[in-house]
Amino acid sequence: MQPDDTKLQFDERGNLRHFLSLKGIGAELLTQLLDDAERYLAAPGSLPIRSQSLAGRTVGNLFFEPSTRTRASFDLAGRRLGADVLNLDVNTSSRKKGESILDTIYTLEAMHVDVMVVRDASDGVPAYIARHVNDHISVLNAGESDVSHPTQGLLDLMTIRQHNDDFGNMTVAIVGDIQHSRVAMSASEALQTMGIGELRLVSPAALAPDADRFPGAHIVDNLADGLKDADVVMALRIQRERIGNLDGVPGINEYFANYGISHDSLVYAKPDAIVMHPGPMNRGIEIEGTLADGPRSVITKQVTNGVAVRMAVLDRIGKMMNAR
Amino acid sequence: MQPDDTKLQFDERGNLRHFLSLKGIGAELLTQLLDDAERYLAAPGSLPIRSQSLAGRTVGNLFFEPSTRTRASFDLAGRRLGADVLNLDVNTSSRKKGESILDTIYTLEAMHVDVMVVRDASDGVPAYIARHVNDHISVLNAGESDVSHPTQGLLDLMTIRQHNDDFGNMTVAIVGDIQHSRVAMSASEALQTMGIGELRLVSPAALAPDADRFPGAHIVDNLADGLKDADVVMALRIQRERIGNLDGVPGINEYFANYGISHDSLVYAKPDAIVMHPGPMNRGIEIEGTLADGPRSVITKQVTNGVAVRMAVLDRIGKMMNAR
Amino acid sequence: MQPDDTKLQFDERGNLRHFLSLKGIGAELLTQLLDDAERYLAAPGSLPIRSQSLAGRTVGNLFFEPSTRTRASFDLAGRRLGADVLNLDVNTSSRKKGESILDTIYTLEAMHVDVMVVRDASDGVPAYIARHVNDHISVLNAGESDVSHPTQGLLDLMTIRQHNDDFGNMTVAIVGDIQHSRVAMSASEALQTMGIGELRLVSPAALAPDADRFPGAHIVDNLADGLKDADVVMALRIQRERIGNLDGVPGINEYFANYGISHDSLVYAKPDAIVMHPGPMNRGIEIEGTLADGPRSVITKQVTNGVAVRMAVLDRIGKMMNAR
Repeated sequence: MQPDDTKLQFDERGNLRHFLSLKGIGAELLTQLLDDAERYLAAPGSLPIRSQSLAGRTVGNLFFEPSTRTRASFDLAGRRLGADVLNLDVNTSSRKKGESILDTIYTLEAMHVDVMVVRDASDGVPAYIARHVNDHISVLNAGESDVSHPTQGLLDLMTIRQHNDDFGNMTVAIVGDIQHSRVAMSASEALQTMGIGELRLVSPAALAPDADRFPGAHIVDNLADGLKDADVVMALRIQRERIGNLDGVPGINEYFANYGISHDSLVYAKPDAIVMHPGPMNRGIEIEGTLADGPRSVITKQVTNGVAVRMAVLDRIGKMMNAR
Repeated sequence: MQPDDTKLQFDERGNLRHFLSLKGIGAELLTQLLDDAERYLAAPGSLPIRSQSLAGRTVGNLFFEPSTRTRASFDLAGRRLGADVLNLDVNTSSRKKGESILDTIYTLEAMHVDVMVVRDASDGVPAYIARHVNDHISVLNAGESDVSHPTQGLLDLMTIRQHNDDFGNMTVAIVGDIQHSRVAMSASEALQTMGIGELRLVSPAALAPDADRFPGAHIVDNLADGLKDADVVMALRIQRERIGNLDGVPGINEYFANYGISHDSLVYAKPDAIVMHPGPMNRGIEIEGTLADGPRSVITKQVTNGVAVRMAVLDRIGKMMNAR
Repeated sequence: MQPDDTKLQFDERGNLRHFLSLKGIGAELLTQLLDDAERYLAAPGSLPIRSQSLAGRTVGNLFFEPSTRTRASFDLAGRRLGADVLNLDVNTSSRKKGESILDTIYTLEAMHVDVMVVRDASDGVPAYIARHVNDHISVLNAGESDVSHPTQGLLDLMTIRQHNDDFGNMTVAIVGDIQHSRVAMSASEALQTMGIGELRLVSPAALAPDADRFPGAHIVDNLADGLKDADVVMALRIQRERIGNLDGVPGINEYFANYGISHDSLVYAKPDAIVMHPGPMNRGIEIEGTLADGPRSVITKQVTNGVAVRMAVLDRIGKMMNAR
């Protein structure tokens, strides 16, 4: 994100147009999006809630990194709002032919794709695209390098708020590879905006972030200290290729013993603390399997909320488009 | 299948909920499903028959083995009943990240996927999933190891019944690699339930099945004996990698000469016998090309019936869901 | 194309049934298709124009060569006309299993796929399929070897007509690897049918076509001569693997200097000449990037027109089917 990218997210009337980052999204809008998202929750087995705010529109899913769950989540969110969703397997075709990202974008734009959902391994790609598309197109960030994953941050915030909405008196501990985690970044931004009481980032020193990327957060390298009296414990996915292969990063067993979220380690947190994970999980590495499946886990709730927040964002963008 | 898996297929009111195996599906239900499926047959060139029994529902296609035709068949069946169909390329994404099957399932469940269509190379996976999903979700087996392929069994039964519905006086010969064939298994189950007069399983000895997996069938290693006066001849696909590479399995030319279904070998069968094949075919190995394309072949009818039986099963499940 | 393939495109009442080649498509029908396509153009940001002429029909996208843009274009065109579109990744599944093209086609036919959109690297495949399908099925060529790409030819013609419809007094220069270009072939056919004043095919001698494949065109090996007073300049994509690796084919820098369409080389053309490219572009090889993005470029217009002409062809076929 460059300094002016936060402004880029709003049109001249102040409506949300792109969704690139949680930077610059205030508490009021966050709250409205979560309130909207709650309306998309249906009881399991009942028909999902639908709307037609994207009827006639086309949503293009451009995942330059592989993804099953986030792509499926956006796909279903778009279709449940009446859109045509175009899933582009951009790894295997155009890029093989050497086409630039912008040429792919211009092509989709010319095909009348209204919303582009973009995941990319490079920092800055969603904002770069947003700066280049025509006025009538919206860009959604579906995961950007280790920098930003704003709909993940929204769904995490929604899940936490369902447990406890007194953010000012809340302690949240995010545990794992903070340094490389866009999930930690976006969750932190959302929580700081909501005035979180205490945010702790817990990791081995080798995976700790630069403090200035997470202003106001406490960086902790000991799990017991990190989880102490926490209301919310969020385990991050560990990239297996990092485990035991980097200086100062422990092997699997050592990692689980020292940083794994387990029935044993959870005793440090509050008795009613919830356990979160963005998925996909490495059971037995960053989280104990039976804990993930138990009553304190809200992991599948996060997935459900993921479809709901994406519907809330897309619905708002669809209504903005229809009002033009 | 474990002993209680057949019960697993029905809900507490006795409605079909999962479709995992033809074991435990009685003659009455089989007949009803085929009768339902007949109503989905439309004349070529006319509009396909549609219904809205899955309107608002989401069907997830989870193919852990590659498939074009079965996946397309379920995709079209679901869409023609009004469902959103989510095709998940599960090989290339989540499994790369080491996610367990159950975590993939829980994720889809949380996204409000109502029906999961599963193909897997391992024995027991569809029933395993069915035992773990929430009450409101249905699981359909789209091909399970060498054990079961129940919608294939249904479509084969439908195709045979269109030729001749006097099962008690009928001889069916299934020819090929019986030992590794889920198609043979499911067809046998369906035919035995309908009280087939004589079922013959014809193969080189090296590809013959354990007799106790096919109770009541006759295991034959000579094609002339196997086809004698048969009403129905079903050739199975031969895995090319087995031909000539296993002890006792002949090479291509020898296989075709001894076990190939051809104009020449078909003289042993009844003059009006029909020829079936589940596809994709190896022309010139297990079946003669001109025979496959000729008037006695019902191979494309099988494909058409495949969409129809999948619609019949999905329609029944959709109605069960809507009645809750 | 064999001699009678042009007739194959029309049914017994003279209606367009298959769209295999621009050979045999007269000026009147070309004009009607372009007129129809113009009606599918919507202002950017407004809802795309839709119709229901394919409602209930199924379009199968069979791309035996990889493609993002043409496949997406047909996908959106089909869906915007109300069709179910089935995208078949035919490389990765059936062909692995050794299934023949015709068996794949018969399978789709049996699943009630009404329109088959085919791309293949081999000469003659779309017509071969058209000769084998049932009466009620239509086949569309989406790119055939180096022989034909008729919807590309249509969209190029539409784009040129938007600039200038006085074909008889027009000079069009196509520049690049003419020898291997189905784009050049189909554009030439369309332009000759419309009575183009002068058609120039410009390339290094090593990439020049056989003159008898392009009757009436001028084959030119010098860019200044080729572009002189041209109204339209169409750059073709250069296959990177050919650059510098074939006798007489220059390296990248030399190619760009001698045959690249650039601000510098465009001075030979008319002052208002437009610049076209079928995409995906190799910027800096066959075309200068800033020119492609500038006001004289109609490259994104071509993409927009691509969806519109595909809708026009599909709409006509859908109406023909519905009138049966």
